[in-house]
Amino acid sequence: MTNKATFCSDMSVDLVRCLADDDIVIDSARVSTNTVGADTDVSRFIDFLVRDRHGSPFEHCVFTFALDVPIFVAREIMRHRIASYSEESGRYTASRLKFYLLESHRPLVQAGKPGDYKFTPGSQLQIDYASIVNASTCVEAAETYQAMLDDGIAREVARMVLPVSTYTRIHMTINARSLMNFLSLRHATKDSWYKTSPLYEIELVAKQMEQQFKEFMPHTHAAFIEHGRIAP
Amino acid sequence: MTNKATFCSDMSVDLVRCLADDDIVIDSARVSTNTVGADTDVSRFIDFLVRDRHGSPFEHCVFTFALDVPIFVAREIMRHRIASYSEESGRYTASRLKFYLLESHRPLVQAGKPGDYKFTPGSQLQIDYASIVNASTCVEAAETYQAMLDDGIAREVARMVLPVSTYTRIHMTINARSLMNFLSLRHATKDSWYKTSPLYEIELVAKQMEQQFKEFMPHTHAAFIEHGRIAP
Amino acid sequence: MTNKATFCSDMSVDLVRCLADDDIVIDSARVSTNTVGADTDVSRFIDFLVRDRHGSPFEHCVFTFALDVPIFVAREIMRHRIASYSEESGRYTASRLKFYLLESHRPLVQAGKPGDYKFTPGSQLQIDYASIVNASTCVEAAETYQAMLDDGIAREVARMVLPVSTYTRIHMTINARSLMNFLSLRHATKDSWYKTSPLYEIELVAKQMEQQFKEFMPHTHAAFIEHGRIAP
Amino acid sequence: MTNKATFCSDMSVDLVRCLADDDIVIDSARVSTNTVGADTDVSRFIDFLVRDRHGSPFEHCVFTFALDVPIFVAREIMRHRIASYSEESGRYTASRLKFYLLESHRPLVQAGKPGDYKFTPGSQLQIDYASIVNASTCVEAAETYQAMLDDGIAREVARMVLPVSTYTRIHMTINARSLMNFLSLRHATKDSWYKTSPLYEIELVAKQMEQQFKEFMPHTHAAFIEHGRIAP
Repeated sequence: MTNKATFCSDMSVDLVRCLADDDIVIDSARVSTNTVGADTDVSRFIDFLVRDRHGSPFEHCVFTFALDVPIFVAREIMRHRIASYSEESGRYTASRLKFYLLESHRPLVQAGKPGDYKFTPGSQLQIDYASIVNASTCVEAAETYQAMLDDGIAREVARMVLPVSTYTRIHMTINARSLMNFLSLRHATKDSWYKTSPLYEIELVAKQMEQQFKEFMPHTHAAFIEHGRIAP
Repeated sequence: MTNKATFCSDMSVDLVRCLADDDIVIDSARVSTNTVGADTDVSRFIDFLVRDRHGSPFEHCVFTFALDVPIFVAREIMRHRIASYSEESGRYTASRLKFYLLESHRPLVQAGKPGDYKFTPGSQLQIDYASIVNASTCVEAAETYQAMLDDGIAREVARMVLPVSTYTRIHMTINARSLMNFLSLRHATKDSWYKTSPLYEIELVAKQMEQQFKEFMPHTHAAFIEHGRIAP
Repeated sequence: MTNKATFCSDMSVDLVRCLADDDIVIDSARVSTNTVGADTDVSRFIDFLVRDRHGSPFEHCVFTFALDVPIFVAREIMRHRIASYSEESGRYTASRLKFYLLESHRPLVQAGKPGDYKFTPGSQLQIDYASIVNASTCVEAAETYQAMLDDGIAREVARMVLPVSTYTRIHMTINARSLMNFLSLRHATKDSWYKTSPLYEIELVAKQMEQQFKEFMPHTHAAFIEHGRIAP
Repeated sequence: MTNKATFCSDMSVDLVRCLADDDIVIDSARVSTNTVGADTDVSRFIDFLVRDRHGSPFEHCVFTFALDVPIFVAREIMRHRIASYSEESGRYTASRLKFYLLESHRPLVQAGKPGDYKFTPGSQLQIDYASIVNASTCVEAAETYQAMLDDGIAREVARMVLPVSTYTRIHMTINARSLMNFLSLRHATKDSWYKTSPLYEIELVAKQMEQQFKEFMPHTHAAFIEHGRIAP
């Protein structure tokens, strides 16, 4: 079998399944006041919960996402330690040899110092150069990896030559409270009370998760925005 | 309004909702080997996961239970810190004045020393005595509590007179891996490789949770039993 | 042996040991920039970390507190699930029969509704009434508890008559990041960006923890205050 | 500045600081029985705690390790989510361009199938081949990385060409209970009741941590071994 390098510039985030809606939040919060099932203005009640940082009721809602992202993005996601992960293993399966390709929108140049900097697009020359070395590194890594497998060397050894731009698949289960924490740090908008400077690629992931979050829990999402994108 | 003490000897455990079955475990585990959707012997695969302690795939299954249990039981449950809890609040709502009544099956006498003891039923005299003081304490506490509320004293102050046998409601969301950990410690059976001496009342809770667990995840439950009731 | 009820109105918080200072935070944060040991303005660097919510470096500092607090306070503390706890067991040891006595400063009357209320001191009559029933409930519970033990009934059964105002001892180990989260919710000051309405007694606990936190990590504490008492 | 690739075959694990000994375990466990300071046979008491899976007292002991390991090892370590991590950032600092070099002891060939396999050393040809491509991949990656930085491209973009064998530094703070869980899965010995097949390189890390653990908590370590290397 010969595996060839393939390229991709997207962060893939699919919803596998979820058990999440605003009513679950209300039902759970109503346990505290012994009024489960009572008539409630959902929007106002959830706004109150977020505003006053009553976070527990949001934990009863869970989302499972299927991610297909480069290793350097997966690493940042897992750093949060607030979700459950099942990940493609470099030991148990051969790499798909799918790699991240820099696309032209990706800002390349950092101006400023750690803690206070901005990103600018970069010149056309920089863009061309970065794309070419990025791609050629991956092609070579794929060939080397495949050659090692063909030589009978174990996957867990061969994978050492793969770059951190290699894609990996993850199933990630996270509750709505933890998800808001993740979004508060990894998606920077004008609504954020706190400054945050997420990596370009992880923000692509966060935006897609936020879309799903908004769809299934519209009132919770609205309150999250209203109160400065801080997780309750 | 006059609230009167009511009594109960049961631990109430209802399944509110769940997103849990053996197939979710398989699907999640298959992410590691890049074979999502592959044909698999469910039972054998899950047995392998439990045997070799691959615990992550079980975390993608969640259960939400509605508990109605005495405070002294709720305290032990929360000690585990591996679930999400929304609990009836003694600050936000008036106590339902529902209390735990010792029933005649409840062993009363401890023989042995800490770490190595057994429980025996107790004599009829002890049973009668314990039941009476247990009940009369609750009746008096209920009256005192109600009198304080009637006097305009805040719920959070009045509740200080309530005994730890007062019932409290909790919604508890827990994933299947954490649930197995809870069950391994709080339900002692002949299959347990580890000795554990759960409190009588928390074991009543654990048994009911295990029933639901078994119903929704029969293969996982079978593997849990097979491998000594240790959470993977 | 005869145990008698004793009373206390304090929340006892003693520092058992700690491994915590601002330099540990700096050292840990410097791992990220590969400049461990570099010369740094401690105050400015820590301010930056808190402002931009780089929370991980604070997790390397830990405090162990010995608490002696009523059960209703212990319950709220444990709800946070972000610390390690070893607690006096009602199963393994006889209760010390030490109870919480309402002192005259404790506000008794709640005005307003859930989510938007204030506490007022209460009239002298209310104060007297609440103190008396509070105390007499405890005296009776202590006698009943002791009588059950004398009758040979197990501690874990006898303790069911004890009120939630019974004191319990806990060793609690918590890192500085989690501690800030706890303090943000359980100690309300004019510096808080978020409104929070902690229980009077848990705030007494939080204030003492904050004193220790400030002493060992003065720069971190200053930054925590400066940035609205939100945990990074 | 020109950075050149350097190579290393070791996993570096240094103890930065710790607050951990068997007496802390005893003191914490004694809170449960209200006998803090009592005379105790340390060894027997700790053995009892591990045997009966009383895990909480071990959580009050913490270790901070400084790791210098390849990214593919760091990834596995962080998967555990039971520790605090501060890691060298590919965004905030330039890579040290230190890479893992396969040494001749590293088994190269996997015989068997997933879930039931063994590793064998590999032939001399395989060893030579693997070492050469491993090293040359790193040399090229280092040159490409450095060229991108020289061209003004941001570190977070340039690092995408680096292989997962690139070293990264981490400060990791973990309590003794979580450490035992880590060791139970990542260091396989004849004492293990459960089969586990750790990656060769992560086992090198685990062995060094276990050395430190044994030194500071000899009785706890002995009980851990005695009871099948399962974390209490």
